Amino acid sequence: MTRRVALLAHEGVPDRAKTAVGVLRYTDDEVVAVLDREIAEADPGARVADYIDGVPDAPIVGRAADAPAFDALVIGVAPIGGGFDESWRSDVRHALESGADVVAGLHYFLSEDEEFASLAAEHGGELWDVRRPPADLTVADGVARDLDAEIVLTVGTDCSTGKMTTTRELYEAAVERGVDAAFVPTGQTGIIIEDWGIPIDRTVSDFTAGAVERMCRERADHDYLFVEGQGSIVHPAYSAVTTGILHGAMPDSLVLCHEAGREAIHGYESFAIPDPGEVASLYESLAKPVAPTEVVAGALNTKALSERDAEDALARYRSQVGVPVADPIRDGAEPLLEAVL
Amino acid sequence: MTRRVALLAHEGVPDRAKTAVGVLRYTDDEVVAVLDREIAEADPGARVADYIDGVPDAPIVGRAADAPAFDALVIGVAPIGGGFDESWRSDVRHALESGADVVAGLHYFLSEDEEFASLAAEHGGELWDVRRPPADLTVADGVARDLDAEIVLTVGTDCSTGKMTTTRELYEAAVERGVDAAFVPTGQTGIIIEDWGIPIDRTVSDFTAGAVERMCRERADHDYLFVEGQGSIVHPAYSAVTTGILHGAMPDSLVLCHEAGREAIHGYESFAIPDPGEVASLYESLAKPVAPTEVVAGALNTKALSERDAEDALARYRSQVGVPVADPIRDGAEPLLEAVL
Repeated sequence: MTRRVALLAHEGVPDRAKTAVGVLRYTDDEVVAVLDREIAEADPGARVADYIDGVPDAPIVGRAADAPAFDALVIGVAPIGGGFDESWRSDVRHALESGADVVAGLHYFLSEDEEFASLAAEHGGELWDVRRPPADLTVADGVARDLDAEIVLTVGTDCSTGKMTTTRELYEAAVERGVDAAFVPTGQTGIIIEDWGIPIDRTVSDFTAGAVERMCRERADHDYLFVEGQGSIVHPAYSAVTTGILHGAMPDSLVLCHEAGREAIHGYESFAIPDPGEVASLYESLAKPVAPTEVVAGALNTKALSERDAEDALARYRSQVGVPVADPIRDGAEPLLEAVL
Repeated sequence: MTRRVALLAHEGVPDRAKTAVGVLRYTDDEVVAVLDREIAEADPGARVADYIDGVPDAPIVGRAADAPAFDALVIGVAPIGGGFDESWRSDVRHALESGADVVAGLHYFLSEDEEFASLAAEHGGELWDVRRPPADLTVADGVARDLDAEIVLTVGTDCSTGKMTTTRELYEAAVERGVDAAFVPTGQTGIIIEDWGIPIDRTVSDFTAGAVERMCRERADHDYLFVEGQGSIVHPAYSAVTTGILHGAMPDSLVLCHEAGREAIHGYESFAIPDPGEVASLYESLAKPVAPTEVVAGALNTKALSERDAEDALARYRSQVGVPVADPIRDGAEPLLEAVL
């Protein structure tokens, strides 16, 4: 049965609601409304289609109480720091009082909030904190390279360069072709879409590689695993997570994700992003002692560019990384999949 | 006031009790006994000096009840997985019943053990779980490179190659010379010795770099910070932690630690350790996009070798890494410190 979902994305549509946009694009659920009070006030009657291309349409409303009936409220914005914004409390309260589930990928766990826990218990809804890792994680055994499945990992020059999107597009294109493939999510959006997965950035540091390895083993009966990468090895804050995924997944091939025109680490502007070709080589050098692999394709996010500029950017990116490149949203993932299979 | 400490190291003396040996070597406390029931049974009246060179002597006893009066029991062995061995329970119970503190660096938290918590409350002892990180860690701001202090980080070709020892020897040699230096511990042994620090391998993965950065900032009023590294970037399970420390500390220089003759990752024998010179280059390549640094010295653990063989091993290591090298235990840390200052 298709679940009816409301997506909370206050002040987030269209560019600051990565989770909401990811869920809109890839979920099998029916999104009955997106909550963005800023848009709902400025533009009454607004629709998702007015703000975001290429996703199923839905009304944009100001609060949960204005949405059509839904089975689950998904928190679709992730503020810096991952806290819970108290101004969202009335929406979560309304959802729980109507018996709906609430799904969140915040560092703050809703299930530890007394009011929410008691409302959920009273009305029968579930609180799912996607970012709470399993309690029984362990260090890696170092066995992902021995799995029969071909493992494809997306890596990036920075955060928010399109790794989740690229991974998902590759996976869907592979399934479309009849390939026996699985998607291995490592972040909240992917986990919400897939209804399975471990939030790698939230595991105990020692268990980072082990958590990715565990997911690969659980899906090892497929021919291809498309593993969602996180962060970047050139990121001053998140490189630990990236390295743990690289060495835990021991991928057979890498797809390097970059955003056209981005020259510095987002939010850490004094850190320049090296030439993407250098970043690709660094991933290969870091992988080599543990499990050699190669960057076989490059995904470029060109959404800010005109078609003409996007073509130029893709040509430049191709010369930098020396492998086939494409914007999987603009061009589809087929050109990348060709290089991977 | 000097604290009297008993060190639990059952079946660990001399080679499988890294924490106990580290505490013996560097603590300002008085070690009144080491607990190793295997040795106590086989060799009644045994002394630490019979088994471990270069540390203060103490009796080896079979159980806490046989030790002279002490103020704290330190768990000095760290079994794979970090669990609590139930056969240690009577020793911990005895310590708590006598009003002593118990200090442990296990993944299993003694303070969450009902019996221990209630005994500690009843008799006034404290349970200190060294491996529990602070609750308020955050992502890195990316600022360690801007600190006035010169930051020296030890890195390794593998775990257990002597990073804690080398860092501590460098720190002590610097202080000896009159340098205004601080030791920044990242693992349980260093934290127990220093009575301060964050267990990096136990932080949330996203906060790995941030936790190291925070410690560097707290000690930034010193001229030199000697930061204890963990794991290795060529380790299939622990490289995430290593990378987080490298990018969080943004060190001005690196000291590469290696064990003579070790050719494969300990416990992961199918993973060969590359030539140490290649590992050094990989650390520099990985550091470069975030904060460029260089391997300026190499520490070689030669404890398994004769003096003659150690000299040969040091010569070989020097040719591999191309910088001054020494075994800080055999030769003292001065040759390494010369290269660092």
